[in-house]
Amino acid sequence: MKNFTYYNPVKIVFGKGAIDQLRTLAPASANLLLTYGGGSIKRNGVYDQVLAALQVKRVVEFGGIEPNPKYETLLEAVEVVKKEKIDFLLSVGGGSVLDGTKFIAAAAHFSGADPWEIITKHRRLQQAVPLGAVLTLPATGSEMNSFAVISRAATQEKLSFASSKIFPRFSILDPETTRSLDMRQTANGVVDAFAHVLEQYMTVPVNSPLQDRQAEAILLTLIQEGPRVMANPNDYDVRANIMWCACQALNGLIGCGVVQDWSTHAIGHELTAFYGLDHAQSLAVVFPALLRHQRERKAAKLLQYGERIFGITEGSEAQRIEQAVDRTERFFRSLGVGTRLADYGIQAQGLERIGRRIAERDGKIGEHQAIGQKEIDEILSAALYQDDDK
Amino acid sequence: MKNFTYYNPVKIVFGKGAIDQLRTLAPASANLLLTYGGGSIKRNGVYDQVLAALQVKRVVEFGGIEPNPKYETLLEAVEVVKKEKIDFLLSVGGGSVLDGTKFIAAAAHFSGADPWEIITKHRRLQQAVPLGAVLTLPATGSEMNSFAVISRAATQEKLSFASSKIFPRFSILDPETTRSLDMRQTANGVVDAFAHVLEQYMTVPVNSPLQDRQAEAILLTLIQEGPRVMANPNDYDVRANIMWCACQALNGLIGCGVVQDWSTHAIGHELTAFYGLDHAQSLAVVFPALLRHQRERKAAKLLQYGERIFGITEGSEAQRIEQAVDRTERFFRSLGVGTRLADYGIQAQGLERIGRRIAERDGKIGEHQAIGQKEIDEILSAALYQDDDK
Repeated sequence: MKNFTYYNPVKIVFGKGAIDQLRTLAPASANLLLTYGGGSIKRNGVYDQVLAALQVKRVVEFGGIEPNPKYETLLEAVEVVKKEKIDFLLSVGGGSVLDGTKFIAAAAHFSGADPWEIITKHRRLQQAVPLGAVLTLPATGSEMNSFAVISRAATQEKLSFASSKIFPRFSILDPETTRSLDMRQTANGVVDAFAHVLEQYMTVPVNSPLQDRQAEAILLTLIQEGPRVMANPNDYDVRANIMWCACQALNGLIGCGVVQDWSTHAIGHELTAFYGLDHAQSLAVVFPALLRHQRERKAAKLLQYGERIFGITEGSEAQRIEQAVDRTERFFRSLGVGTRLADYGIQAQGLERIGRRIAERDGKIGEHQAIGQKEIDEILSAALYQDDDK
Repeated sequence: MKNFTYYNPVKIVFGKGAIDQLRTLAPASANLLLTYGGGSIKRNGVYDQVLAALQVKRVVEFGGIEPNPKYETLLEAVEVVKKEKIDFLLSVGGGSVLDGTKFIAAAAHFSGADPWEIITKHRRLQQAVPLGAVLTLPATGSEMNSFAVISRAATQEKLSFASSKIFPRFSILDPETTRSLDMRQTANGVVDAFAHVLEQYMTVPVNSPLQDRQAEAILLTLIQEGPRVMANPNDYDVRANIMWCACQALNGLIGCGVVQDWSTHAIGHELTAFYGLDHAQSLAVVFPALLRHQRERKAAKLLQYGERIFGITEGSEAQRIEQAVDRTERFFRSLGVGTRLADYGIQAQGLERIGRRIAERDGKIGEHQAIGQKEIDEILSAALYQDDDK
């Protein structure tokens, strides 16, 4: 395996009734900004639970953080932080609210002229407002990592940044809060977590048997629990298992010492930026096409994945690889998440913007830095229609 | 699954040449006490690497910490810490040196009359000297947890304590340092890690499929890599995989939200305290006998383990369970670690001290609190001889 550093100081408080622990987790002296999204937390009771538990000096609220949180909105929150002398942020919601809150935490202490440079210029953060999270949507893993993905409406950009300063001090994961998610959000979460694992697993072998099996542990569990949650959305254990999978999928652990890809995310972010696809939808579209396109480079891992995840042992290597990708695609579709651009009404025209922009910004991407503008065009073309739709 | 809290702020720096990072990891202002054991670090070059990398104000040394670190020795180190105004501890060695160093860290700030009460009275620590580790023997997982096990010669006791204050600030794991371990230490490490997983896994199902598979990931990897390291002790990748397994086996992760046992450790510690068995030897002796004794209570997990780890699917449930335990015992023996008391020259006479002491101190142990003096006597009797030795 490769050399690595692993550091993750997030305190995870998991289970029924865990929100009550805000009582001691949030600093009593805090001038706290409670951030949230479209208001679902007011309908499902989470907002009331949070306010009942919080024992802090003062609570200020900032709602309206969008899915794919917008830079423009977050800058408004930064003004509130400064004006109200906020010294602790509490994100209550899903990964978008939390990613947005991480950006608020960073931007409030940013001394440069343009906070967007935190993202585009990879400015090293000296400081950030400390933050905690109450997670209500398992998907992104943001609750246990130091990443955030931010969108900018004005430029149709969706980009990520990372800093150890934006690790949540704590994240509260109460699976009961996820029972009220609709089926689209639920399915998206499963696909998102699955894709996060694939980005760290489906590359080249580096003799990392433990990490491989830790990754496969998450994949197997998602494949088992995904259909169950669709059939029984109110089942606490199933919700809990999915919530823990999503957290483990992107907390850095399975990425220790292995080769990672992340080109599906790069392409998917552009699909969201240009067409407004949900994050998970974009991943479900790109991943199968990308795996087929890169099947020779990823052959060893695709064969291992096919055998260990789907029990595929018969046929030629090429057949087993195609079966493995096909089963992956069918898994996404079985959850109701479309895997082709046509499922979202997207046609060929204009798609070339995606490869062009990625190539200009990042050069070639993927674990071999072999995916450039031409390859992205090919992948997106292959992702347009289901074969039997043609 | 059950509710849980997971918090683990240890920074792991893993790989070839990682010791060099001491340069920035150890605080420049530190009055540092370098703790070590019997001096193997001076023979294998690790001591020189550490001193070459350290950029701190002052380095004081304390060597001679024994396997199963002794309270009496550690109190001498506490005096050095106080006298030399030490403000950072660096453990260089295996789990014993590190556990000892954790106790030194705690005892140096202990305000009561008798530091042994940190262990026996579970005194809550207000403070501890910050510490880091250079690990040279993968086995105990101490490098990424907040536990320590300390022995007291005067009373033949071996007991553990835990505190978030004794998490290492960092642990450096360079697999190259483990190439010089002898075969007994190497095999012991594999058995120790395997047993740590079993203590957290082989209990009762609580619908925790991810944790189960994460545990199985470690078991499968140890079963694969164990024979390899015995055959090729100089293979870097194999050494690295075992080192990462041992770390993951007891960093709290696989224990999240599941029912844990730890009765094998309780009994094993007494075998070490009374007879001087290596920790891993004691576990290799107790575990098979305990699993057979508790086979009805642990049936569901034993069947899952048999199938997923050893591929056992044929025969009655009782036969499959016996096969699973037998394969476990044979795995330990294949590494050269004896699984019966007779292998270490221990006879029946005097064994009753163990059950009596545990029962007096702890009452009944195990996940059902069903293992008392009588059951411990039965387990140890069954562990005396191999069937074919009788």
